[in-house]
Amino acid sequence: MRAELERAIAEVRERTVDDKAALVVFSGDLDRVMAAFVIATGAAAAGLETSMFFTFWGLSALKKKGVKVPHKGFKQRMFALMTPDSSEGLGTSKLNFFGMGSVMLRSMMKEQGIASLEELMQMARDLGVRTTACTMSMDAMGIEREELLDGLEYGGVAAFMGDAARARVALFI
Amino acid sequence: MRAELERAIAEVRERTVDDKAALVVFSGDLDRVMAAFVIATGAAAAGLETSMFFTFWGLSALKKKGVKVPHKGFKQRMFALMTPDSSEGLGTSKLNFFGMGSVMLRSMMKEQGIASLEELMQMARDLGVRTTACTMSMDAMGIEREELLDGLEYGGVAAFMGDAARARVALFI
Amino acid sequence: MRAELERAIAEVRERTVDDKAALVVFSGDLDRVMAAFVIATGAAAAGLETSMFFTFWGLSALKKKGVKVPHKGFKQRMFALMTPDSSEGLGTSKLNFFGMGSVMLRSMMKEQGIASLEELMQMARDLGVRTTACTMSMDAMGIEREELLDGLEYGGVAAFMGDAARARVALFI
Repeated sequence: MRAELERAIAEVRERTVDDKAALVVFSGDLDRVMAAFVIATGAAAAGLETSMFFTFWGLSALKKKGVKVPHKGFKQRMFALMTPDSSEGLGTSKLNFFGMGSVMLRSMMKEQGIASLEELMQMARDLGVRTTACTMSMDAMGIEREELLDGLEYGGVAAFMGDAARARVALFI
Repeated sequence: MRAELERAIAEVRERTVDDKAALVVFSGDLDRVMAAFVIATGAAAAGLETSMFFTFWGLSALKKKGVKVPHKGFKQRMFALMTPDSSEGLGTSKLNFFGMGSVMLRSMMKEQGIASLEELMQMARDLGVRTTACTMSMDAMGIEREELLDGLEYGGVAAFMGDAARARVALFI
Repeated sequence: MRAELERAIAEVRERTVDDKAALVVFSGDLDRVMAAFVIATGAAAAGLETSMFFTFWGLSALKKKGVKVPHKGFKQRMFALMTPDSSEGLGTSKLNFFGMGSVMLRSMMKEQGIASLEELMQMARDLGVRTTACTMSMDAMGIEREELLDGLEYGGVAAFMGDAARARVALFI
């Protein structure tokens, strides 16, 4: 009888979740990336082991400012030219007006004593939030590791699914 | 032995979820806000205790039409001018053409007997969906409580995480 | 005592999840739809029973190329004219420049040996990913079943919630 009950408990245990949160950051808009970091730091502060998976436009937020990589193809160079060169260059998803929107948003948040995106990113690091750059997107857009911030992990969709499938909260941002 | 099994069951119970759904409504586009309310009412109808957390552009959907607040800063007034003044003012995320898109979408839905956004919002209230306005976004954008609908709750990311971490479904819209 | 423990285990079992993933594909942007299929095939490959629920702009990705349906209303015809006529017509969410963005993105991905959207869609079918078209959106936009790919399921928000409420991962894309 005990064995039976133990088996039943083990079966149920396989259908449970871990105290984790897993976010996909697909967007490269300042407002959405900020929301992602607010949620990530909030999740970490609430005791969830939190990971962020940056893919596609989101990779711009992870770029180190001013790093130039030689030998890029033409399309990759065009792409790099037309996307932000670091978190500081992100525009807003609406009312951007060639960057005015993000200047205004950042200044409004600063006046209210709200952490800037860069401060939120540091907070996330301090709270142990894991940050993964999507290698498939990097290949597609011709982004090299030396263009990205230090301390990142690298992985594909399997890395994200590994976290998300066990997580309490998984969001696509 | 009984104590041991009880402990095992208690351990597993800590890794379970509640019959809850938690939605972040970040977008202020008519089509996305409608999707959020369709999902929220669907979740509530399916028996899930449902909460919606409105942040950033999503706050426009909660504005009371025609309320003017004095003493706003210049940037806050600009922001208010350039964002919708209530759910009725929301535009579509694509093909908006200065409001034509939302007029057309609303009229196409009406012809098909589909509930309007305002009807969906009432349905959500009737089904007991909890609605929270993000205080950090309100601070950043200079939105006061008297500008928003009655019956809202107010909270930050911790309020959302409290719901989401126990929820069966958490979505970022 | 045994009955009591069994009851406790049954109670906990009701609070567990299934090995499922459920995605809402709301967006009709090439980049986001690709992300949806990468995640869906990744989830299926990780052993999760995966379903995709296409709604609103996302329905464009399910259109059969070149199918014309007579007797559409004026607004429905306008809508059809202004939205892509199949997965091949999807534009990117940023830097689209009247279709240049998607041509460039597709060519950059091809050069890197990354699967095209259409290959990912076939992969999803091969992996048994279930695809549902949102009937409410079809009604609203005047889309008929003969305009959509074969092998789809049809349903409303209740169909999605049925999957999502039991899923390990639910995302809104």
